[in-house]
Amino acid sequence: MLVNGKEMRSLWYEDERLKLIDQRKLPEKFEIFEAKSVEDVAYAIKEMVVRGAPAIGCAAVYGVAMAEDLERAGKMLKETRPTAHDLFYAIDTIMEKIKNGEDALECAERYTEEIVEKCRKIGENGAKIIPRNARILTHCNAGALACVDYGTALAPIRIAKEKNLFVWVDETRPRLQGLLTAWELEQEDIEHAIIADNSAGYLMYNGEVDLVIVGADRIARNYDFANKIGTYEKAVVAKENEIPFYVAAPLSTFDKNIENGNQIKIEERREEEIFSIYPWKPKKAKNPAFDITPAKYVTGIITEEGIIELKN
Amino acid sequence: MLVNGKEMRSLWYEDERLKLIDQRKLPEKFEIFEAKSVEDVAYAIKEMVVRGAPAIGCAAVYGVAMAEDLERAGKMLKETRPTAHDLFYAIDTIMEKIKNGEDALECAERYTEEIVEKCRKIGENGAKIIPRNARILTHCNAGALACVDYGTALAPIRIAKEKNLFVWVDETRPRLQGLLTAWELEQEDIEHAIIADNSAGYLMYNGEVDLVIVGADRIARNYDFANKIGTYEKAVVAKENEIPFYVAAPLSTFDKNIENGNQIKIEERREEEIFSIYPWKPKKAKNPAFDITPAKYVTGIITEEGIIELKN
Repeated sequence: MLVNGKEMRSLWYEDERLKLIDQRKLPEKFEIFEAKSVEDVAYAIKEMVVRGAPAIGCAAVYGVAMAEDLERAGKMLKETRPTAHDLFYAIDTIMEKIKNGEDALECAERYTEEIVEKCRKIGENGAKIIPRNARILTHCNAGALACVDYGTALAPIRIAKEKNLFVWVDETRPRLQGLLTAWELEQEDIEHAIIADNSAGYLMYNGEVDLVIVGADRIARNYDFANKIGTYEKAVVAKENEIPFYVAAPLSTFDKNIENGNQIKIEERREEEIFSIYPWKPKKAKNPAFDITPAKYVTGIITEEGIIELKN
Repeated sequence: MLVNGKEMRSLWYEDERLKLIDQRKLPEKFEIFEAKSVEDVAYAIKEMVVRGAPAIGCAAVYGVAMAEDLERAGKMLKETRPTAHDLFYAIDTIMEKIKNGEDALECAERYTEEIVEKCRKIGENGAKIIPRNARILTHCNAGALACVDYGTALAPIRIAKEKNLFVWVDETRPRLQGLLTAWELEQEDIEHAIIADNSAGYLMYNGEVDLVIVGADRIARNYDFANKIGTYEKAVVAKENEIPFYVAAPLSTFDKNIENGNQIKIEERREEEIFSIYPWKPKKAKNPAFDITPAKYVTGIITEEGIIELKN
């Protein structure tokens, strides 16, 4: 991804530590968070220094690689956040390889390179379904920040950008990850506008959205999927308005152990995430971080191996 | 409505001026805004010192009553905000009466008393469709603040409050009018929780919402209606989940000159309303203040004369 015109990644290993663009500070401040231990990595995932399913998986493999006690590291990292499947997949994958005698750090580097390559292929596959002059709605940030590079939902947009695209960016309350998407699009010089999440339906109804592309945190065997809270509403309204709705995700997001969306555990986060922008404190809030979108609302899933077309 | 245990209204005429609870400051600060002229009233409507269709109508009639040049006052007030029908209805109604020789201030007082009485009847009519232990979702603030007293969507909840109700309050970005609703419910001791607008669909899908009640700014002849941005999404998702969706509004919200929702003018407001909570300024935003919900998503419209059941 471009950051002030220079190619960069959202996390990398250097000087015996994992360096991460601090996504809690962006886009206001560009700061690098340095994790020197598996504890630091667990903190970075839990507190959302790093966020986005594929990037969390990459951070976790470095966390495992930096640990002395493998089992303890795996357990600690798996307890950070419950919804994203990549996290669990990444940890299990690297632990098996290390147990088979492979070099831990090399495994982490290779895992991360593979994620980047998968995202690039998602971009190439997804670019094919984007028409010229398309106005695309996206939710949350499924960009390079969330995926080390390219992104999932943003990868096809990056690769198809010469098609004169326009992106509607849901601000994505409560954590406003839409600002990260707006920042990435500004860096790449792709035209866009940010909207309150409430406006997405209005724009769809008004014929101002040609296509919706979102990421995913976990996909069940029947293709129901978990993604950032609000995704479900956008999917229902897109279908109601006959607007194609695509999910972009690497195959590591598919959880073969889960039959349907109802079995996916939804993370509940602190009320303070909602209250932080308020000038006054309400009595109570509810703050689910994800929701489930049944497969029947999905047009297709863009993966590194091609597009899974769903018959909806 | 109760404010710190005392009965109060959101606006009233006293000492030759219109006094309004300043809704830009609430719930952080409780301040009274004093309008001494029609210009002050126009400012109060435009800048949302007073908001909510019925309350805007009442403020406007006092504005007309305080003016010397009737035609100029009507024109100025009609240019403040384009979407709410009550505003235009209220101005036309009082101007006709004044031209017929009636006392301007008496007309304004009577108009306002009638609005309060209509809201009370909306409350009584709506209370009948609220089951015991209902979990009700509402969007924006259609409470006493928006209506001088009782509210439209909140009136049935106030009157049925002994039925052990729980209210889910959409925060309602970008202006967070959900905080006004949370504040009113806290004052009335009605159990509630605030949510990011993105969570409403998740709660409906999870079976945690029994009923949706919202207000309206303008209702067309075919019952399509305009209301706060985001209402359309909630209505579509409610129907998808077979959850009753009610609109509560006085008959003054019905615009007989408009055949369907597509003819309703939608107000676009400043980008700064969206940006004000951001630590960083995106390039561009789009900020429609209202959206249109087609009648096919509506279960019924609760008015002062009874409930119009729609066959959906």
